[in-house]
Amino acid sequence: MVAGLLQQIRRTVRREALLPPGTKVLIALSGGSDSVALTCILVQLAATDDFSVAGVAHFNHQLRDTAERDEVFCRDLATRLGLEFRSDRADVAAYASAQRLSVEDAARRLRYAFLRTAAADLFADRIAVGHTLDDQAETVLLKMVRGAGLTGLGGISPQKGDVVRPLLEVSKRDLTAYLTSVNAPWLEDETNQDLSNPRNRLRHVVLPSLDETYSGASRAIARAGELMRMDAQWLDARAAELFDAVAETTESGVQLDARRLATEPRPIVRRVLLTALRAIAGNREIGLDHIRLTEDVLGRSCGGTDVPGGRVELRREKLVLSQQGLR
Amino acid sequence: MVAGLLQQIRRTVRREALLPPGTKVLIALSGGSDSVALTCILVQLAATDDFSVAGVAHFNHQLRDTAERDEVFCRDLATRLGLEFRSDRADVAAYASAQRLSVEDAARRLRYAFLRTAAADLFADRIAVGHTLDDQAETVLLKMVRGAGLTGLGGISPQKGDVVRPLLEVSKRDLTAYLTSVNAPWLEDETNQDLSNPRNRLRHVVLPSLDETYSGASRAIARAGELMRMDAQWLDARAAELFDAVAETTESGVQLDARRLATEPRPIVRRVLLTALRAIAGNREIGLDHIRLTEDVLGRSCGGTDVPGGRVELRREKLVLSQQGLR
Repeated sequence: MVAGLLQQIRRTVRREALLPPGTKVLIALSGGSDSVALTCILVQLAATDDFSVAGVAHFNHQLRDTAERDEVFCRDLATRLGLEFRSDRADVAAYASAQRLSVEDAARRLRYAFLRTAAADLFADRIAVGHTLDDQAETVLLKMVRGAGLTGLGGISPQKGDVVRPLLEVSKRDLTAYLTSVNAPWLEDETNQDLSNPRNRLRHVVLPSLDETYSGASRAIARAGELMRMDAQWLDARAAELFDAVAETTESGVQLDARRLATEPRPIVRRVLLTALRAIAGNREIGLDHIRLTEDVLGRSCGGTDVPGGRVELRREKLVLSQQGLR
Repeated sequence: MVAGLLQQIRRTVRREALLPPGTKVLIALSGGSDSVALTCILVQLAATDDFSVAGVAHFNHQLRDTAERDEVFCRDLATRLGLEFRSDRADVAAYASAQRLSVEDAARRLRYAFLRTAAADLFADRIAVGHTLDDQAETVLLKMVRGAGLTGLGGISPQKGDVVRPLLEVSKRDLTAYLTSVNAPWLEDETNQDLSNPRNRLRHVVLPSLDETYSGASRAIARAGELMRMDAQWLDARAAELFDAVAETTESGVQLDARRLATEPRPIVRRVLLTALRAIAGNREIGLDHIRLTEDVLGRSCGGTDVPGGRVELRREKLVLSQQGLR
């Protein structure tokens, strides 16, 4: 079991080039099962593979009663493994209210700022974080039910800048089984059990019920997310090129070369229209309905339509998107 | 409410060109709420729009105790609406066991064969069926959890050949509210309540729990499915073109022009590899893992690999897929 798990993680690391030869990686450690497993496994892999562990870093969010205990636990684990340890703390709740952020967002910002400092301090060029296949499935489903269908479907990327996610293709269950088999303790995260949080409801109610309906459902969703991400990235890149070729910024908004758009494939055109609609919408949200209305104007089945923040009209060979009050 | 519902259905019908001017449509009527609503609504729309209802058709599957009562109910509804009525019956269970089909598959085949006969008999050029937004959300989620990620993600199409689905963007709940408001009765389908059937578990357990977590979740999933279908159709068509350009059928399987593949985008290449792998796999299933292994061979990070039904190797500038025993 352990060998299979390590092999799977090594495959992810190599295929996605997460830790190229000579990399020094800093491990983000919360003390939960995922990050403890990440730490133990990367230490094990570093013994044979061509990268090294620069150290572990723990951020104390000062949000839970157990925050001090958690920090001590992480320091002890680092010491036991003979690894460098860095920690820092911040009053996340105070920062969140001062910056008008959700506690979750505030925690993420402060944590990543700290991780980058710790990485620089330890000469690390990658930061490994413990997202698993379960996080991937949750994210895909969450984006889908939130209506991210227009773009943004697809899962978490195995690498974003210097942040890498070696555990993205293994399940939390396999990781806790691994930790049990190597006798490594971890901290339970009580806040994750709160079912009033939608992500936790997905994790603890919806996904288990899907897995009961179809065994392997979470894994299938995670993989679908990976494939959608790849498809969408490419389509988005094609659309960005086309947007640059057909769009012209005007005083009142954007205008697009309608004749050129008419010859392009619909999945790309839809994305170009989305970009243009967003440009005049300000912070207002664009939905599939707005894209469809704009397609109707482009196809001459309607003369013009109101859209969030402005109006779309066809004038000669131009699709004209103008901001409210600027027409 | 009723006006809004009719307007939404009219929009779907027009945008997707489901019932072009002069169309005569046959309505498939089971007696359940969806198909009763479909019948009442199309009769109402036909009064003002440029299509006509050729009649309704009911197929008696002889599977349920209520089959005779259901048929009488449908005949009565047709009579009350002044519509032509056609019905037929078959022993679906016997046909399923003789043809080694699931009862569901057997029912579908016999039903559609009957509907085509009835349509010809009534000079109808379209057959309208009652799939709703809920069916769409179920299908998208079902495909996803069954691991249809490689292709085949995406929802039900509003039109396939002569079969059209005008209710695909409205919810079952809106339809029953409509029927209640116009005092139209319908038949409850008890078999749909059986939770040992995975589709029913999705319908009655998973999707309600998603909708409780995020209001509008089903609608968002249905829309995501529609967009994925559009993206995937286009990518699949590009991949089919590329396959024709790079593939050569050999005695033992297929070979692909590796140099040409290396210059093409990954979402398209992945689909070309899938097509080639399926060509040598027979009935065996191809998973994302097999695609990845084949990508590794193509990228020269491994010399060759076994795949379902055969083997993949790089020989000079050709990616050679050979069937087992035929190398």
